[in-house]
Amino acid sequence: MSRPPDPERLGEFDIIARFFAPLATDPVSLGLTDDAALLHAESRDDLIVTTDTVIESVHFLERDPPETVGHKALAVNLSDLAAKGAEPLGYLLALSLPDQGKQSSTAWLEGLASGLKQLQEQAGTALIGGDTTATPGPLTLTITAIGRLPKGQAVLRSRAKAGDRLYISGTIGDAALGLRLLQDHDLAARWGLSEAEAEHLVDRYRRPQPRTHLAPILRHHAHGAIDVSDGLAGDLDKLCIASGLRARVQAGDVPLSVAAAKACEAEPGLLPMLLTGGDDYEILAAIPADRARGFAIDAERAGLPVTEIGSLEPAPPAGSTFVDRSGAALNLPVRSFSHFV
Amino acid sequence: MSRPPDPERLGEFDIIARFFAPLATDPVSLGLTDDAALLHAESRDDLIVTTDTVIESVHFLERDPPETVGHKALAVNLSDLAAKGAEPLGYLLALSLPDQGKQSSTAWLEGLASGLKQLQEQAGTALIGGDTTATPGPLTLTITAIGRLPKGQAVLRSRAKAGDRLYISGTIGDAALGLRLLQDHDLAARWGLSEAEAEHLVDRYRRPQPRTHLAPILRHHAHGAIDVSDGLAGDLDKLCIASGLRARVQAGDVPLSVAAAKACEAEPGLLPMLLTGGDDYEILAAIPADRARGFAIDAERAGLPVTEIGSLEPAPPAGSTFVDRSGAALNLPVRSFSHFV
Repeated sequence: MSRPPDPERLGEFDIIARFFAPLATDPVSLGLTDDAALLHAESRDDLIVTTDTVIESVHFLERDPPETVGHKALAVNLSDLAAKGAEPLGYLLALSLPDQGKQSSTAWLEGLASGLKQLQEQAGTALIGGDTTATPGPLTLTITAIGRLPKGQAVLRSRAKAGDRLYISGTIGDAALGLRLLQDHDLAARWGLSEAEAEHLVDRYRRPQPRTHLAPILRHHAHGAIDVSDGLAGDLDKLCIASGLRARVQAGDVPLSVAAAKACEAEPGLLPMLLTGGDDYEILAAIPADRARGFAIDAERAGLPVTEIGSLEPAPPAGSTFVDRSGAALNLPVRSFSHFV
Repeated sequence: MSRPPDPERLGEFDIIARFFAPLATDPVSLGLTDDAALLHAESRDDLIVTTDTVIESVHFLERDPPETVGHKALAVNLSDLAAKGAEPLGYLLALSLPDQGKQSSTAWLEGLASGLKQLQEQAGTALIGGDTTATPGPLTLTITAIGRLPKGQAVLRSRAKAGDRLYISGTIGDAALGLRLLQDHDLAARWGLSEAEAEHLVDRYRRPQPRTHLAPILRHHAHGAIDVSDGLAGDLDKLCIASGLRARVQAGDVPLSVAAAKACEAEPGLLPMLLTGGDDYEILAAIPADRARGFAIDAERAGLPVTEIGSLEPAPPAGSTFVDRSGAALNLPVRSFSHFV
């Protein structure tokens, strides 16, 4: 089980002291020296706890810069908190570092920590605990994020109502296109993208932006919400099934970035992939009709524009239909991107 | 990134519905359908959050039964909660299942879930959330456990005082011997162990028992505590360094099981390994002298006997010394077992 120590290799405690202790800026972390965080509960609050794992060559690419790996591991968890209407309170990082390889280098670990630091500062949160271990497998990061919201105000995916309007934040499909660009360097030219446009799509894949500032606006207006991590169609299905409803979405209303629109124009067959591709980390929300205008205005003011894409109807059958301008249903046999096949 | 689906292979949602949803007996889990748990905080409570990862062939053996893998993954986290004086409130499981291999089989996953179920029932807790993903690497389980205790009563490793007596729960070194037995089948005969004794040591390695019922007794009596996961000597050093103290331990007072005592008699050179070998998951506590008798009686009544092994003195230098009957210091150059080399 044990391997001979490599003198060049940093030990667990060196790694924690050097790279992670500086991220533990909140006293609840107990300085990362107590194998646990100590949170003071407030009875006016509810807490949301969520955990997500990202694994090299499954959720990110071997050549992705370490800053973006740290960013993504935290972002996918903060995205879950935002969808529940919760503001982040802190997070724990369980890091499994490969026995060998570049990820044990000082430069790589500095990059990883820097990606975490930048996003935690942007989101107003901090590292509060974790575990660092060696693995014979690929780099694996499991983050558990804890969020806070006023008691009874959690936004669940099961509480959407018939008649609600469906809104999506940001734009859809960029990350799926960014991943394709990283896998095939000829695509940017074929899609007629400028360098900046191609970079935008790749950045959307590598550095998803959790919609943390949408959390209080969701609490105020939304009946239900879900973060879109596995593809818009599949995640909308989940919301519909949890709420026992049917969704009808105008595919042409789904907001696309300039770059994604260009790619779609060059290759119209891409649209189904954008709607099912995953890694968007946008928020899909079910908003009562009389709240729709207020929701859109509040989101715009927070710098996070949202777009109405459809509405919810009574089931059965629970699920969603995407229709084109003529009202014909799009054929989306694969509803979502799964890392689990 | 994506692989062609294997029709024999269970999907993520099947696995959650079939094996893990039955463990989510607390409504805070939101039925595992919302990618998050919703906890209601109480202002009279503090919360402890801890996370630990176990990886195949690092923290457990490839041929360990799945029940014991589930047991161990949860036990190591509950042990951390117990050392803080916290009772478990719930836990999240991030499971990374190998692309191929027996661990994706129904029988194996049933075993894993059964090990979790047995321990969660014994400890009075439940699964409240998680994430299931495929990995090209070894089976990896990261559990995040959340515990609760009355506000201000957390037992930290940094608050031990000079003059405190050092107590250890249970017996030390069994798991390290159990691992050696699994690696070398001739050892049991060489150590003169009966089959039951050898099985006891192996079981201590595979199914560590978190000392959950010691939590309220620690809150009542202890200045400081730590769970012994990486070896008694190394973890005592951590407590000493966090509290700025020096420990003096009578090595002969460290409690050994009948089986471990037999092994030591057959091979006296084993003692240092027992004191540094790891995987004990016992609780080391610093108890003020005037509380020592009450602590021992309360622990005995809870069915968790504790043994006095030494005491704490002012530093410098912070750290610990193990002495033999003559008062001579034992030479323990390796202070703890590290999976991280």
